[in-house]
Amino acid sequence: MKNFSYHNPVKIIFGKQTIAQVANEIPAHAKVLVTYGGGSIKKNGVYEQVKAALSGFSHLEFGGIEPNPRYETCMKAVELIRREKVTFLLAVGGGSVVDGTKLIAAAVSFGGNPWDIVAKRAPFTAALPIGVVLTLPATGTEMNGNSVITRAETQEKLSFSSPLAYPKFSILDPETTYSLPPRQVSNGVVDAFVHVAEQYMNPPASAPLQDYYAESILKVLIEEGGKALSAPLDYNVRANVMWAATMALNGLIACGVPQDWSTHEIGHELTALHGLDHGQTLAVVMPGVWRTLRAQKFDKLLQMGERVFGITGGAPEERVEAAIDATENFFRSLGTKTRLSEYGLNASVIEPIAQRFAARGHAFITADMVREVLTQRV
Amino acid sequence: MKNFSYHNPVKIIFGKQTIAQVANEIPAHAKVLVTYGGGSIKKNGVYEQVKAALSGFSHLEFGGIEPNPRYETCMKAVELIRREKVTFLLAVGGGSVVDGTKLIAAAVSFGGNPWDIVAKRAPFTAALPIGVVLTLPATGTEMNGNSVITRAETQEKLSFSSPLAYPKFSILDPETTYSLPPRQVSNGVVDAFVHVAEQYMNPPASAPLQDYYAESILKVLIEEGGKALSAPLDYNVRANVMWAATMALNGLIACGVPQDWSTHEIGHELTALHGLDHGQTLAVVMPGVWRTLRAQKFDKLLQMGERVFGITGGAPEERVEAAIDATENFFRSLGTKTRLSEYGLNASVIEPIAQRFAARGHAFITADMVREVLTQRV
Repeated sequence: MKNFSYHNPVKIIFGKQTIAQVANEIPAHAKVLVTYGGGSIKKNGVYEQVKAALSGFSHLEFGGIEPNPRYETCMKAVELIRREKVTFLLAVGGGSVVDGTKLIAAAVSFGGNPWDIVAKRAPFTAALPIGVVLTLPATGTEMNGNSVITRAETQEKLSFSSPLAYPKFSILDPETTYSLPPRQVSNGVVDAFVHVAEQYMNPPASAPLQDYYAESILKVLIEEGGKALSAPLDYNVRANVMWAATMALNGLIACGVPQDWSTHEIGHELTALHGLDHGQTLAVVMPGVWRTLRAQKFDKLLQMGERVFGITGGAPEERVEAAIDATENFFRSLGTKTRLSEYGLNASVIEPIAQRFAARGHAFITADMVREVLTQRV
Repeated sequence: MKNFSYHNPVKIIFGKQTIAQVANEIPAHAKVLVTYGGGSIKKNGVYEQVKAALSGFSHLEFGGIEPNPRYETCMKAVELIRREKVTFLLAVGGGSVVDGTKLIAAAVSFGGNPWDIVAKRAPFTAALPIGVVLTLPATGTEMNGNSVITRAETQEKLSFSSPLAYPKFSILDPETTYSLPPRQVSNGVVDAFVHVAEQYMNPPASAPLQDYYAESILKVLIEEGGKALSAPLDYNVRANVMWAATMALNGLIACGVPQDWSTHEIGHELTALHGLDHGQTLAVVMPGVWRTLRAQKFDKLLQMGERVFGITGGAPEERVEAAIDATENFFRSLGTKTRLSEYGLNASVIEPIAQRFAARGHAFITADMVREVLTQRV
């Protein structure tokens, strides 16, 4: 096991009818900005619950944070915050709203060009405190310090991470997810699955507890993910998917083991350039990454095949192929397509993405690797 | 799944040669009291590493905190702290040192009788900050707000818990455990196993991730626990046992599920009245609790039998018995005795313990239940 440090101070408040507890967690006398997205919270009752919880607080609103939150939108919120002297941010929505709010929180008192926080991962020394009311289980942002931001004018989608970007608290009421469209449910399950995979599908590191934990999350996503589509009003199903998605990226299963975020990094380009949903890009890319890096992932593919999918027959090479196929088939069982051509894209998309990684001089994801990964996925 | 909140702000620093990082975690200008136990840290090199790390800090020492830390000893440290105006406590040792230090931290500014913190679970509103250098994987106290304290004059062993008792940081260097006596290694593995069981061996709660996580910890303890005895200098074995013991009682597997701490509560009486090691008492008591409460634990005993011990044959009743036996046999494989008579005790110890629970009016653990549990364990 490698040395590690783990420090996750987010307070999780989980369960039915918990949104009212917002009022206990926000500092007295705070001036609150409620950030949200396209307005779904006004249709599913979440907005009313948040407004009721905030009745004792001075607060204002900033809506319209997009899926794949845009830098340009976040900067409008920063202006509002400076003008109105906001002291606390309450992000109400899915991962995009939370990620955008993290950049907003960091940018408010940042001295330089806030885009550098994302593009150059420029360190920042202060950020407004954030609370979260999560309505979409997927990204894990509710219990980590990560954020992914898109810049529309340059078609870039990039990430940053900071201890200052951890929410102070996150409220997870599974009932808020009852009204999600099936596509968002599927995308969320795929996203959580791939988060686990990026931290797990790597050379063994003599870390059996981390392995068992990762496999635990994968099993729950497989067992419960489909039920979230077929029985959308089953509270326990929704609760288990939500908790699994949070646990998939809160730092715990990464303790002491190697990581590989190739699938996410290549996937981000498909979103930035071609507008695929984040979860869709992951389902397309990951089987290609696994086959391209088969040698280094071989032992864990065997292990996942056996422990997660029950694949025990055949030669090791066959079992590895079966494990990759089983993963892709799971994504497809959720209704998520896994080929570029199924999204109307062909091999012409590959070279521009390969060139982007070449231009960035990415240490691990070379242009050749991108070509090899995506050529398989047309 | 039940509603829950989870908030664990302890910073874990895990790995080889990490004790020097103490210097980065203690506030500048702190006046530090180093608390420790019987002096083993002066034989295994830990003391020297801590002293070197503290070279830039004003600090003093308080040694002699016993296994099953005594209230009376803790109060001597409180006097020293008040006299010397100590501002930070660094607990160096196993669970007893850490637990004693938690009481010390709370008692320093407590207005009333500090014994009430333990005996009456009197709330406290302030505590000195604590850092931990852990040398014995067992209790999980390094990543929670719990403490168990013994009062010698009344032969009582009681616990308290507070958000203010969480360490600010805990340093876990598995190499510090190389020199542990086998009995302490075994006790630690049993303790961690039973911590998991108290949170897991209860009626199913539609919480599959929590179940899988609990089973993950049990499997690691079973797979690695014996190796810690047979290959005591294997770093990865020590690391896996240490991390599993921390994860066994940091609140995570308790999220959203029922708990039952009967084994601990009855076991505490065997320590308080008859001096058995904590781990020894748990190994004696737990099979009795499981058989006494077989009906409510039946489904999970079956599940553990299958998933943890691979018990799949026979009628359910037989598999449940086999699962209980497998657990007891695991404890015995570590060299831990599991019967009162093996510790020189007979049935005469039962009634005084039953009477204690009757006198306390314990809601769940009745005198009759204690009699039924312990009669099986002579």
